[in-house]
Amino acid sequence: MAHDPALAWLDAHYQAMPPVAALGVSIAGYDGDALRLRAPLALHVNDKGCAFGGSMASLMTLAGWGLFTLHVRAVGLDADVFVADSSVKFRQPLYADLAVEAWRAGDETWDDALAALRTRGRARMFIAACVRGTDGVVAAESRARFVAVAKG
Amino acid sequence: MAHDPALAWLDAHYQAMPPVAALGVSIAGYDGDALRLRAPLALHVNDKGCAFGGSMASLMTLAGWGLFTLHVRAVGLDADVFVADSSVKFRQPLYADLAVEAWRAGDETWDDALAALRTRGRARMFIAACVRGTDGVVAAESRARFVAVAKG
Repeated sequence: MAHDPALAWLDAHYQAMPPVAALGVSIAGYDGDALRLRAPLALHVNDKGCAFGGSMASLMTLAGWGLFTLHVRAVGLDADVFVADSSVKFRQPLYADLAVEAWRAGDETWDDALAALRTRGRARMFIAACVRGTDGVVAAESRARFVAVAKG
Repeated sequence: MAHDPALAWLDAHYQAMPPVAALGVSIAGYDGDALRLRAPLALHVNDKGCAFGGSMASLMTLAGWGLFTLHVRAVGLDADVFVADSSVKFRQPLYADLAVEAWRAGDETWDDALAALRTRGRARMFIAACVRGTDGVVAAESRARFVAVAKG
């Protein structure tokens, strides 16, 4: 992904945060709609040999945060992006490396949110995410509300 | 807390899990009702200089898991404890070390859950948790459903 300057920036931003660097995250893909991350199971294994639920929640939060941040930067805005609330359902144990994906949920479009950020200095978006195993089975799903606050 | 064998066991169990060791967690207290954990902000700081939301969600999950596990062990049972779902509200940025607390929520008592685990091999509990700053202000709150499945 290093050939895309926006993703290279996001990756550097991720790795500069100690709790994110500890997650062993790498960017697996971005098509403008969905952001995909990966992380090795070895860093996230719990006492049962599967992925720790807290790690899956962290990775989904991080994917949602990254997705919103990419959209904000793509239109030349600068904002702090926060997670405001989230709900997570854990479907089944995951015994493989973690593939995480986040995408827009809810009725507001990215254009709506970015217009609000530009005119009112604040925007919110609902973002869904999931964690899959290498067999494609969904181990965890989330829906979260993120808020962006314009800087300066 | 090392004088309490149950907490010494829990601490060793925590530190044996790579994603938990990476959180820098220590056990701050347990009175039979609430389990308290601590973690240094330095390991959890995000791009805004405050605690990463994903870290706070992880720590609350971990506190709930530990609380349920302590109750299971206290009556001599052996079970795998999983988080099944959770919802988190992030109240405000936290610029201090993280103090996490988890306690029983919902109508079921520990006695109810442990009786179900003993007789049916399975039990669930709703557990609430929060993350506070050193000034006592609540930065994040959660409510999660945990499931215990008897081993063997």
